[in-house]
Amino acid sequence: MFGEIITIGNELTSGRELDLNSRYAARALLDAGLKVTRITSVGDDYDMVTDVLKRAIKKSRFVIVTGGLGSTDDDITSEIVAQALNRPLVLDEPMIRLIKSRLADLGMEMTPSLEKLARIPEGSRVLNPGGNCSGFCLEEEGVCLYFLPGVPAQMSYLMEKVVMPEILSRYAQLPVVRQRILKLFGINESSIAEIFKKMDKKTGDVEFGFYPNFPENHITMTLKGDDVSVVERELNRIEKQVRRYFDPYLFASGNQEMEEVVGAGLSAKKMTLSIAESCTGGLIGDRLTNVPGSSNYFLGGVVAYSNDSKVYFLGVSPETLEKHGAVSHETVGEMAQGIRKNIKADLGLAVTGIAGPGGGTKEKPVGTVYIGLAAGNEIFSEKYRFWGKRKHIKVNTSMMAMDWIRRYLNGDPFLSGV
Amino acid sequence: MFGEIITIGNELTSGRELDLNSRYAARALLDAGLKVTRITSVGDDYDMVTDVLKRAIKKSRFVIVTGGLGSTDDDITSEIVAQALNRPLVLDEPMIRLIKSRLADLGMEMTPSLEKLARIPEGSRVLNPGGNCSGFCLEEEGVCLYFLPGVPAQMSYLMEKVVMPEILSRYAQLPVVRQRILKLFGINESSIAEIFKKMDKKTGDVEFGFYPNFPENHITMTLKGDDVSVVERELNRIEKQVRRYFDPYLFASGNQEMEEVVGAGLSAKKMTLSIAESCTGGLIGDRLTNVPGSSNYFLGGVVAYSNDSKVYFLGVSPETLEKHGAVSHETVGEMAQGIRKNIKADLGLAVTGIAGPGGGTKEKPVGTVYIGLAAGNEIFSEKYRFWGKRKHIKVNTSMMAMDWIRRYLNGDPFLSGV
Repeated sequence: MFGEIITIGNELTSGRELDLNSRYAARALLDAGLKVTRITSVGDDYDMVTDVLKRAIKKSRFVIVTGGLGSTDDDITSEIVAQALNRPLVLDEPMIRLIKSRLADLGMEMTPSLEKLARIPEGSRVLNPGGNCSGFCLEEEGVCLYFLPGVPAQMSYLMEKVVMPEILSRYAQLPVVRQRILKLFGINESSIAEIFKKMDKKTGDVEFGFYPNFPENHITMTLKGDDVSVVERELNRIEKQVRRYFDPYLFASGNQEMEEVVGAGLSAKKMTLSIAESCTGGLIGDRLTNVPGSSNYFLGGVVAYSNDSKVYFLGVSPETLEKHGAVSHETVGEMAQGIRKNIKADLGLAVTGIAGPGGGTKEKPVGTVYIGLAAGNEIFSEKYRFWGKRKHIKVNTSMMAMDWIRRYLNGDPFLSGV
Repeated sequence: MFGEIITIGNELTSGRELDLNSRYAARALLDAGLKVTRITSVGDDYDMVTDVLKRAIKKSRFVIVTGGLGSTDDDITSEIVAQALNRPLVLDEPMIRLIKSRLADLGMEMTPSLEKLARIPEGSRVLNPGGNCSGFCLEEEGVCLYFLPGVPAQMSYLMEKVVMPEILSRYAQLPVVRQRILKLFGINESSIAEIFKKMDKKTGDVEFGFYPNFPENHITMTLKGDDVSVVERELNRIEKQVRRYFDPYLFASGNQEMEEVVGAGLSAKKMTLSIAESCTGGLIGDRLTNVPGSSNYFLGGVVAYSNDSKVYFLGVSPETLEKHGAVSHETVGEMAQGIRKNIKADLGLAVTGIAGPGGGTKEKPVGTVYIGLAAGNEIFSEKYRFWGKRKHIKVNTSMMAMDWIRRYLNGDPFLSGV
């Protein structure tokens, strides 16, 4: 029931790359009710990989290993496994035929670096669903070891198509593990802790987790049990209770992102949105359009970085810019109404601010941001002060702006500013 | 000389959060010439944390531990350390006074969850530079253990202000480790492997690494030695050689991002840029404006998601859209020229394509993207076919579009399309 994840590569221990694979694998396993006890990243180093592999075989029921299966010289996982587990490398004939036929389609010939992809430790089984990408799997002292490529798209493809179905069919007698996630915006961790302490809770065996995830805060509720319906019912009860206490800040649950919540809200009300971004530079549009089907409600926008573009595209009056500045209630209101009218949308959302590090003044320090919303002839605007580096200020602004749309659609008040 | 990083939190082993802290710490240590042999993530679990801590003390010279120092109930690192190393928790008086005075400034009172922040294992030393955030450090069997908060901004602050200076002063007799990174775009990993094999190299003890980092590929060159000037000279020689072989694809080195390269190029030529984005939804603008000072050369843009907005903001002719469609050479050219003229920029960059999952046709499948550039009266355009999910197509498009600006400024040909 307990597994480990091992990710191999100097790019991880040197901090050059983020370990996206272990996150993906851990989440897939948890969602299936399997617990990951440890995630270890080691460099492309014979002794270290051997040590970590042998320990994992002793401690776990299954092990997911990623990385080092590619065609370059630093891809040494297969050789390490061969030596560590005393299983010499052998050429997998079906695999070599597959590579050759793929190359023939492209009018190319076999190369030694590609042949390497077909060499696997003796007694292991190639994982190659649909012929798209490959890893291998072997059993050692009753423990299943899955070796997958480090390229995230290939790794997740193999996890989904082969590894998860195999692991689930093998460890079917699992106790149930279910987790709920509530996502909050606009409240900090210590305020959450205080509210939680005051909560009149009969939470039983539910395990709570609190995770700051800038600019969000997440609360998790995890429960184990033998019977899925009992576990789900108990979690429903607890979640309802927690929701009551944190309702004003709660914007999503599960894996849902703010942009999906906003998109679903706009779709439900059949409303269209347009945006005028200054300090966020396009980030709000980028996030909104990450949602498939967003073209149904998102009509477009303007990245009005210069004053001229605010005048030309949004019809902000030069007098407003002159008198109140680009970062002001007046300007953000005209931006919002301008984009709404020009693009013929139901809603016009605008942001303008000072992302820094330069451009701050005593009255308008770095982090000063105005958000505006035009809905029909109504215009709302609010001043905020955000903290941190340029990217933090951009991210916080995009989040607050999207939260405005969410709250407007729900009929809730906006979070107050400064 | 060898250290480990341990990150604690169920949010990591459950795959809910990316482990940003270990990446930060590993990079800081490598840059300072210290090697990280292992990164381990474990949940908020007494036995597992104890086991990992004790092993690290046996194997390493220093250990960086992050997470579990906050004010919520699931923050249990201090208690675990207290029990595992037999050092009962004690209240740090200066720390409690600091918290109280901070609270007084805000007109707030002490709470038990905040008092918890001042309880540290006996014999440890509070790390609290400038009073901004805090961790603690202790020595066990000659090994330095640093316990830092899991919030990335706090963790990196303490690393920079206290941990790195302390570790460096302690392990000053290090051999030198230096690393160079070359970043490539437009070439795949197995082509890199083949070119590298053909390279006439006298690379001595330099260790090469090859890392696909979608949509980029990175080559690293790492060398150890006793004398920094010898190491640097040797790396200069090797880097020059590698650059010659991979020049057409090489867009940056070190930690530089494409948007910084583009920004530096525009600044050097004193040219201004405007963008018209369709399928990327604002991502190009977002990336360009992540660079401080980008307002000097980036004037703004339009996110022309709907056909109407392409006509209204960019002057794309309705006949062009009717005859050739929104995803075509003709439309992308008019978009590029339209944004350039309307915003009065030197360059107008445009992208239009089908990010999917819907919207594809037989002639224009998902992943079909046109890129256009207007420079004076010249208009360039090219058709590409990108693969993967919606976000992959957006990211690849934004990268290719920025690479166009880089190549245009250098007088290099654009990467060819389909």
